[in-house]
Amino acid sequence: NTPSMLILPGDGIGQEVMTEVQRVIAWFGDKRDVKFDVSEDLVGGAAYDAHGTPLTDATMAKAQEVDAVLLGAVGGPKYDDLDFSVKPERGLLRLRKEMDLFANLRPAQCFDALADFSSLKKDIVSGLDIMIVRELTSGSYFGEPRGIFEEDGQRVGINTQRYTEAEIDRVARSAFELARKRNNKVCSMEKANVMESGILWREVVTAVHKADYADVELSHMYADNGAMQLVRAPKQFDVIVTDNLFGDILSDCAAMLTGSLGMLPSASLGAPMANGRPKAMYEPVHGSAPDIMGQSKANPCACILSLAMALRYSFDLGEEATRLEKAVETVLAKGIRTGDLMQADGGKPVSTSEMTDAIIAELQAS
Amino acid sequence: NTPSMLILPGDGIGQEVMTEVQRVIAWFGDKRDVKFDVSEDLVGGAAYDAHGTPLTDATMAKAQEVDAVLLGAVGGPKYDDLDFSVKPERGLLRLRKEMDLFANLRPAQCFDALADFSSLKKDIVSGLDIMIVRELTSGSYFGEPRGIFEEDGQRVGINTQRYTEAEIDRVARSAFELARKRNNKVCSMEKANVMESGILWREVVTAVHKADYADVELSHMYADNGAMQLVRAPKQFDVIVTDNLFGDILSDCAAMLTGSLGMLPSASLGAPMANGRPKAMYEPVHGSAPDIMGQSKANPCACILSLAMALRYSFDLGEEATRLEKAVETVLAKGIRTGDLMQADGGKPVSTSEMTDAIIAELQAS
Ligand SMILES: CC(C)[C@H](C(=O)O)[C@@H](O)C(=O)O
Ligand SMILES: CC(C)[C@H](C(=O)O)[C@@H](O)C(=O)O
Repeated sequence: NTPSMLILPGDGIGQEVMTEVQRVIAWFGDKRDVKFDVSEDLVGGAAYDAHGTPLTDATMAKAQEVDAVLLGAVGGPKYDDLDFSVKPERGLLRLRKEMDLFANLRPAQCFDALADFSSLKKDIVSGLDIMIVRELTSGSYFGEPRGIFEEDGQRVGINTQRYTEAEIDRVARSAFELARKRNNKVCSMEKANVMESGILWREVVTAVHKADYADVELSHMYADNGAMQLVRAPKQFDVIVTDNLFGDILSDCAAMLTGSLGMLPSASLGAPMANGRPKAMYEPVHGSAPDIMGQSKANPCACILSLAMALRYSFDLGEEATRLEKAVETVLAKGIRTGDLMQADGGKPVSTSEMTDAIIAELQAS
Repeated sequence: NTPSMLILPGDGIGQEVMTEVQRVIAWFGDKRDVKFDVSEDLVGGAAYDAHGTPLTDATMAKAQEVDAVLLGAVGGPKYDDLDFSVKPERGLLRLRKEMDLFANLRPAQCFDALADFSSLKKDIVSGLDIMIVRELTSGSYFGEPRGIFEEDGQRVGINTQRYTEAEIDRVARSAFELARKRNNKVCSMEKANVMESGILWREVVTAVHKADYADVELSHMYADNGAMQLVRAPKQFDVIVTDNLFGDILSDCAAMLTGSLGMLPSASLGAPMANGRPKAMYEPVHGSAPDIMGQSKANPCACILSLAMALRYSFDLGEEATRLEKAVETVLAKGIRTGDLMQADGGKPVSTSEMTDAIIAELQAS
C-alpha cells in the first residue's frame, strides 16, 4: 500500500512553499513511480482561524496515522496577542510532543554557490556541513511545574528544565548513529558546570558512548562555549547533540552561519511505528515570513529539501533524496535564485514557482 | 577614606593578568592621585587547593565589605573531576549570588585595529558596540528545585527557571538607564512563545518601559532569533537585556563576533551600598586559559579594561576610565599585540608585561 503524507502548510509563506512541494511530489509520482497518498490540513493560525485552536484533535489523530508529516510554518503578527494556550506555536509543540518526535535533525550546510551570503568570511564557512541533533520533546519546553504564579504578593514566572536518563539516552543514540554515517564525531553541549540537568546529560551521553558507540569520537562542550566556537570555527563540528532549549538557540546560530536560511530543512523523528518507519515530521527552518507572504517571493528550497529528508529518513529512498538535493544544488550553481538569495547587485530574482520549475527541470535532466 | 578593592586572581592566567592590573592601579595612584586600598585573596581552584572550598566564608565577607571586587578567572582541567559543590565555578557563582550582583554588563565592542580578527566580514563588525545586560542572580542558575533525583527507577536531572517580577524589573531598569547614556535602544530577549517565564519577562520589561522609560526605544525578540540576528547583523543592537542562561550564551556569541575575546571586560553590579556605590565585581570575559598559563603570553587587556569599568561604574571616574580605554586603543592602533591578537604573518608578539608597559606609556603620554 501507498505510503501516506500529511501536509500542514500552516501560516504566512507556508502555504506557498507547500504548493511547490506538492509539484515536486507529483513529479516523483509521475516520473519515478514514487507515489504518496497525500492529504492536507490546517495548523497554527490557520487552524485557529477555522476552529479556534492551533491544532484540532482530528488533525492530531491524522498526524499520528500517516507515515510522515510535512509542515510549512506557523505564526504571524495577526496572532501575537492570542492567549498562550492557543498561539500558533502550540500546534507545532503539540505535534512534537504527542508524536514523541524526540530527535530534531537540523543540518547547517553552506551551499557552495551561496557561500558569499554568509556574514562570515568565506573560508570560515565554505564547505560547512554540520548536523545538529536537538532533543525536541522535553526540557524547559515541556517540564512541569510551569506557569505564572502569585507568591508573596508578586508574580513569579516558572519553567522546569527536566531530563530523564531515558530521554537523554535515546537522543544520544540518534546522534551517534548519524555520526557513523557522516564524519564519526559527536560534540555534546550542556552547562554541566552550572546545572545538574547538564551533569546528568553529560553522564548519560558518556555512558551510551562507552557502551555502544566507542568507535565514534565524542567531546563535550559548555553551551556558551559552543555558541562561541560555532562563530569562531564552525567546521570543527560534525554532529552536535544538545537539549531542547540550547538546541533551539544553537541551531539557529548555526543556521545563520550559512547565510541562507531559506535553504535549510529539518527532520523531527520519533520511535519506529509498526511498519518500521519512524514517526516523523519535516519542516523548513525558516518561519512564516508574513512580510513577503502572497508575493511569490518565498524561497521554496528549504521546504523542498525537507521533502528530500523525508525521502531519506521516512521512506528509505536515499537515492531519490540525493537526486533532489543535487537538483537544488545545480539550480543554485546556475545562478537561479529567489530574492532572499540575491546580492544587492545580483540581477533579477525568480519567483517561488519559477524556482521550482528550475528544480523540476534539473530532476528531469538527472 | 580611601576606596577599597579586593583582587581575586583565581586560576590559570588570572594571576598573571592581575599582576598587570596592579601595575595600572599603582600608576593611577602615583600619577593621578587616584588611590585604592587593595587587598588580595583566593577564589576558585586556588582557594580549593588551599582551603578545600572554592570560596571561604572569610573571603566572601571581605568581598561584601569592599567597594569593588576584581576577579581574574576560575577553573582548569585539574579541577574537572571535583564534585559539583566544590568546583571552581561555585566560588564565582557564590560571589554573584551573595553580593546580589543582578546586572551583568558585557560590552561586545570591536576594536578598529582588530576588526580583521573576527570570523565575520569586516563591514559586518567594524564599529560594533553592543552592551549586553545579563541578569546574573536568578533564573536556571539558581532556581529550586534542582538536582539529580531518582524517579520510577531512573535518574532525572532537574533545574528550575524562575523569575519574580521584582527581579525582572530591576535588571530592566539597569538596561534602560544604560541605553539612555548610549544610543537609547533596548532589545529584550526571551522565549515568550514557549515559556511562561518569558511571558512574564516580556510583560514586566514592557511595564517598566511604559512607566519610566518611554523615551527609550524598546523591542522584543525571541532568544533564538536573537542568536541569528547577532550573527547576521549585530550592529542593529545597542543594549540587549536578557536572563541569566540566555545571557550566558548570547553574550558569548556576541563576544566572539568581535574576534578578540582577550579584549573584553565585564561588570557585575548590584544595589547601592550605604556609601552610594553599587556592590560590584569586575572580570574579563575570557577564561583561565590553562594552556598558555605561566608563559607570559596572556593578554592583560580584558582585565585592564575591567579596571576601567570599575573606575567608571564604582568610583564615578568616567574620565579616568576613558583615559585608560584610550590608552589601550592607542596601543592596539600602534600594532602592539600579544600572541592572541596576531595574524599568522603578523610579526613578533609582545609579552603580557610588555603589553602593560605599552599601555602605561600611553597613559603617561596622555
Ligand atoms: C516556533 C517555535 C515554537 C520553535 C521552537 O522554539 O522550537 C522554533 O523556534 C523552532 O526552533 O522550531
Ligand atoms: C564560569 C561559568 C560558571 C560562567 C557562567 O556560566 O556564568 C561563565 O561562563 C560566564 O559567563 O561568566
